[in-house]
Amino acid sequence: MKLLITGGGGFVGARLARRLLKHGTLAGQRIERLVLTDIAPPPADLLADARVEARTGALLAQTEALRDEPFDGIFHLASAVSGECELDFDLGLRSNLDSTRALLDAVRANVNAGGKAPRLVFSSSVAVFGPDPAVPLPALVADDTLPAPQTSYGTQKVICEHLIADYTRKGYVDGRAARLMTVTVRPGKPNGAASSFFSGIIREPLAGIEAICPVSPEVSHPMSSPTRTVDGLVAVYEASRESFGGRLALNLPGLNVRVADMLDALEQVAGKAVRDRVRFERDERIAGIVANWPSGATAARAAKLGLHPHENFAEIIQQYIDDCAALPDAAQTLKGMS
Amino acid sequence: MKLLITGGGGFVGARLARRLLKHGTLAGQRIERLVLTDIAPPPADLLADARVEARTGALLAQTEALRDEPFDGIFHLASAVSGECELDFDLGLRSNLDSTRALLDAVRANVNAGGKAPRLVFSSSVAVFGPDPAVPLPALVADDTLPAPQTSYGTQKVICEHLIADYTRKGYVDGRAARLMTVTVRPGKPNGAASSFFSGIIREPLAGIEAICPVSPEVSHPMSSPTRTVDGLVAVYEASRESFGGRLALNLPGLNVRVADMLDALEQVAGKAVRDRVRFERDERIAGIVANWPSGATAARAAKLGLHPHENFAEIIQQYIDDCAALPDAAQTLKGMS
Repeated sequence: MKLLITGGGGFVGARLARRLLKHGTLAGQRIERLVLTDIAPPPADLLADARVEARTGALLAQTEALRDEPFDGIFHLASAVSGECELDFDLGLRSNLDSTRALLDAVRANVNAGGKAPRLVFSSSVAVFGPDPAVPLPALVADDTLPAPQTSYGTQKVICEHLIADYTRKGYVDGRAARLMTVTVRPGKPNGAASSFFSGIIREPLAGIEAICPVSPEVSHPMSSPTRTVDGLVAVYEASRESFGGRLALNLPGLNVRVADMLDALEQVAGKAVRDRVRFERDERIAGIVANWPSGATAARAAKLGLHPHENFAEIIQQYIDDCAALPDAAQTLKGMS
Repeated sequence: MKLLITGGGGFVGARLARRLLKHGTLAGQRIERLVLTDIAPPPADLLADARVEARTGALLAQTEALRDEPFDGIFHLASAVSGECELDFDLGLRSNLDSTRALLDAVRANVNAGGKAPRLVFSSSVAVFGPDPAVPLPALVADDTLPAPQTSYGTQKVICEHLIADYTRKGYVDGRAARLMTVTVRPGKPNGAASSFFSGIIREPLAGIEAICPVSPEVSHPMSSPTRTVDGLVAVYEASRESFGGRLALNLPGLNVRVADMLDALEQVAGKAVRDRVRFERDERIAGIVANWPSGATAARAAKLGLHPHENFAEIIQQYIDDCAALPDAAQTLKGMS
């Protein structure tokens, strides 16, 4: 089978690619070819695999050519992130809405030319949810909670959910939208995202660096590890149409965890000295944004697919440590633990 | 003030235009200019008003010019209808999604050039609601019922609701999306819409013509008259941002009425001989489509704006008769009543 991962060079995309290549099959079919599109080239280990073909550049510039190139399956992960979309309204519309529409229309052109509708998994986001005067945010957002996005990113995600549902209804694609919870622990540097600290308060202390937590220890949020997120995307792909349950998006599992719980887990895994590198210094701007985020989520439909959140946050930290240990610069990344 | 009505030559648009011109003001401001865009010219009485400027042609072809033309207020009603969108997928995307996006971007260009964000009322639809395996349709759809559209038309409407909410959040427009209930009694010929019979079973018998009802007399649906629908659009325009309540769409009021109730009302208003012109002959295709429609709706937010459904369907029929009596061909339209 021939697969496409848009955003295939990114944090989740590259991990999904590794997982697919290692397993070798998807939904019982052998993976012959894995096309990765992204604005930057994928990591070297992926490029070294003979099955991988990397195409570097904006997705929107690549969709015209895709009209004549059938795929068996697509993971559509490419996206501008929340912070970027708030700063640059056009970028968000182009990267998240227009690109998805163009991808769906490329697929539709294939089907109209006699091809088979590919299966497509779309990475939506917990950012579709938010409070609105007409609809207070429930304590836990569920599969069927009314989306009320508070960002352009969340708006574009919910719009794409609906587009994919309708292209699916018409038979142009076998689409399944899955809402990712906040994925932690992200490696690398802090980025401009308001959620950056959720990874930073674990990653920096482990590297021996002080981290600032800009919100109260009581702030709660649904989290997932990269591995469980990838598990979710694969399971949603492999689900039968019937077991996916309709055409609306589902929530992937998240562990609903308070900042205080995260730090307790950090101390449990890495010791008190590491935990003590986190300092609380309230940032009103970030605290204000985070106050509009769901404090937790449920994922009943995902549970029916056998997907469950981590038992505790220590598992998520341990996964990050194990991931880092496998990298060449492990000593640097985890020097705080020595 | 300068106003724009897209779809200003249509069934609802022309009635809204008449209402605005007759009243002369909107939200306390005098209406100096009323631009009506539509694919066909508006009725002669509107063209005869010196304040009216008609622009004929597809909205999408007109939005580029609108980037340099500020408006105080916009009623965005232009839309391809449900049946058309199911037959021609591209037409629906172009007429309903791309046109709305282009209109919003024209408004944004004005604001970015230093203009004031106009107020905009968008006519969404009860068609955003439907049943989905993951979310059964409630007996009555409310403002905050999760949309699960079963048509491309409904999908495009809910997508536009979200676009307008985000452009509003960003300050590019003061947008308010209002979901119209099924508007009856529509004058003229039956059209291809699955809902056409809701008007046909009243209009044809009144004109002395036999009508076929393709669904059970027990089928129930939320209905509104043209006048109450226009009242709703005006009230939503005139509402303060705070009284509108958030950025999500609201339901306009509908009278939840069974086909049997409609026919009882017809007999009450026009006599048994008129009612007896309706024959039941089940059409599985239409009955199947209608089975996916809400059997009723509530409109709590609209009620707070002073908007209420008709008390009974006889009022809606009487409004149609009064409307027809005001037209030159009244004798023809209502000849069944003689």
